[in-house]
Amino acid sequence: MRQVAIIGIGQTPVDEQWEKSIREIAGEAVFSAMIDAQRDTVDGLFVGNMLSGVLSRQENLGAMITDWVGLRGTEAFKVEAACGSGAAALRLALMAVGSGEMDSAIALGVEKMTETKGGETTAALATAADADYEAIHGLSFVALNALIMQRYLHEFGWKHTDFAPFSINAHANAIHNPFARLQETITEKDYQEARMLAYPINLLDASPIGDGAAAVVVVPLESLRRNGRPLVTIVGSASATDTLAVHDRHDPLWLAAASRSSEKAYSQAGVGPHDIDVFELHDAFSIMSALSLEACGFAERGQGPRLGLEGEILPNGRIPIATRGGLKARGHPVGATGIYQIVEVVQQLRGETGPTQVPGAKIGMAQNIGGSGATIITHILKAN
Amino acid sequence: MRQVAIIGIGQTPVDEQWEKSIREIAGEAVFSAMIDAQRDTVDGLFVGNMLSGVLSRQENLGAMITDWVGLRGTEAFKVEAACGSGAAALRLALMAVGSGEMDSAIALGVEKMTETKGGETTAALATAADADYEAIHGLSFVALNALIMQRYLHEFGWKHTDFAPFSINAHANAIHNPFARLQETITEKDYQEARMLAYPINLLDASPIGDGAAAVVVVPLESLRRNGRPLVTIVGSASATDTLAVHDRHDPLWLAAASRSSEKAYSQAGVGPHDIDVFELHDAFSIMSALSLEACGFAERGQGPRLGLEGEILPNGRIPIATRGGLKARGHPVGATGIYQIVEVVQQLRGETGPTQVPGAKIGMAQNIGGSGATIITHILKAN
Repeated sequence: MRQVAIIGIGQTPVDEQWEKSIREIAGEAVFSAMIDAQRDTVDGLFVGNMLSGVLSRQENLGAMITDWVGLRGTEAFKVEAACGSGAAALRLALMAVGSGEMDSAIALGVEKMTETKGGETTAALATAADADYEAIHGLSFVALNALIMQRYLHEFGWKHTDFAPFSINAHANAIHNPFARLQETITEKDYQEARMLAYPINLLDASPIGDGAAAVVVVPLESLRRNGRPLVTIVGSASATDTLAVHDRHDPLWLAAASRSSEKAYSQAGVGPHDIDVFELHDAFSIMSALSLEACGFAERGQGPRLGLEGEILPNGRIPIATRGGLKARGHPVGATGIYQIVEVVQQLRGETGPTQVPGAKIGMAQNIGGSGATIITHILKAN
Repeated sequence: MRQVAIIGIGQTPVDEQWEKSIREIAGEAVFSAMIDAQRDTVDGLFVGNMLSGVLSRQENLGAMITDWVGLRGTEAFKVEAACGSGAAALRLALMAVGSGEMDSAIALGVEKMTETKGGETTAALATAADADYEAIHGLSFVALNALIMQRYLHEFGWKHTDFAPFSINAHANAIHNPFARLQETITEKDYQEARMLAYPINLLDASPIGDGAAAVVVVPLESLRRNGRPLVTIVGSASATDTLAVHDRHDPLWLAAASRSSEKAYSQAGVGPHDIDVFELHDAFSIMSALSLEACGFAERGQGPRLGLEGEILPNGRIPIATRGGLKARGHPVGATGIYQIVEVVQQLRGETGPTQVPGAKIGMAQNIGGSGATIITHILKAN
């Protein structure tokens, strides 16, 4: 497969965008990415989206969005892997361009989810869980994550407040990201006193949903001439699955698909965890930060919170995470999140993130999760 | 891109399968395909599906089905392009295997759509149309196709009964396909007297929905040794889009995406319409048979019905279509249909279709449509 570079990035703010339709939100991100890439056409569009059918009564987004952005006729598909849909779209765009079947493609993530009532959105999100064995019992996503977190606290002896640094870091970084939904810092006291959602998960453990879209333009590396700007290539891309239902897992505290996909991506890139300068992980809930850090080799099993407590996740720490706010504070427009993560890693590798810039970042990783760890997709990007 | 062969096919009957969940239906097709391929594992699963989120409250089918079929951990994605989802899954599987990123993959199409009430299913199907400009006015799929057919009759001077041969042929062929939903022949009188749905489309112009799944196993051609059975390779694969809404088209009677994708596929395969021995087209409504034959170069514009009236679409005609019943009589489990078509073309190229076998079939084409012509995917297969 030929090597593939990301030459354009675009994103909309994550927010309640009631005044815009899903095609308008998508178009905004696509246009930004094409302007950034200095291209006015591509051979294909891969749309990562989870909920358009349920919440917007709109499928066939591929055809709809290609037409809207002036690419009528161009090949296009929607890709769905629950909250991992965004990275799935990038992975398929990578294969399309890497195979030579396309000479350029856009991977877009888009989600519009704030126009419906909260209960409806929660029920729609639960379609990422196992309908027959989890959702049917009323297990929402926050409930599933609460069970996992509760078990984690019990198993490894941490206190709830030990997870505060994950949320504090995410919020602190988000205030420098104009696209973030929650641009406000929080304190440990705020975290401790936040409203309980499903014990032990409170409001400041959980990421906010939102409407948003992000897009990247990918082309074969061989087609590019250097133009002074750092060139970002995809050096690792891998995906793995696990049981859909959490109770089917041998160990519900181990993200097997994160371990499997990150190991494969490390091996493709010829790097290890110690080489990763920045890691945009899937902090839908604070417990997921700990589990992701452990499964990807940044912490021993059960020791994820230590990285937060020791400041190693800050932009100048050993493994900076959520540097643009993460899901926690940038927001989590579910099917778009995976592409937001990629956009943010590219910004880091280009050195464009201001106060939260990771000094000398050359290799970045993004990991996107669909369901409670059921589909996990890992990408490693490198600045050349 | 390396050449890719289809080495296994599987399918379930298209029917009301109330006693089986979506994972069970999917599993049945996957197991059949793997047995046929004599494989017990693959590197990836691509699930073509349109309605699982809306009708079964279940997304993340990739992870769910890989686990169910004993491939826990394996990379998997759901692909959606409305009723074109099945062929979209094959096209992405082809790129994954062709690129070298995977050494084998399953393209699965699955749909479960008869458990919900008719009105709910009709509304769910309308998510393939433009929600903001078509569905909002109450335009269902049959209504959209009725408008197209009405305009076609007016424009080219055909009578409604001139479309009878399409439906009669499909039903006649289906009685030899044990997986077909409607295994009964119909007469011209039946066609003329059928209950009107939306003028001029009556019940015998329209395909029945159904629950069903079909799967194919694809591997690189270079990995295969000949074993006596005809080897089927994918020699053409292309996809194109058009406006989502029919009224946005310059000419609503011309399937631009069918023309575009078939031309590209012909060129890849180094063949033309005269070389195609069998054509499984997307006859969701009889008018679509005429439009597809015209856009793919088998008939002049406005002359599609002539092929039916002259018997050229029969298994021993110039361009046999719907040889296993087509959407009209095999049935149309929407996201699965594209893979049923591929399975049926493979059966023809292997010479396994009994009384409806196209004599000496060597090159077959399948074309899958999502929306009223918005996404159209064409594959050309060849027996070696």
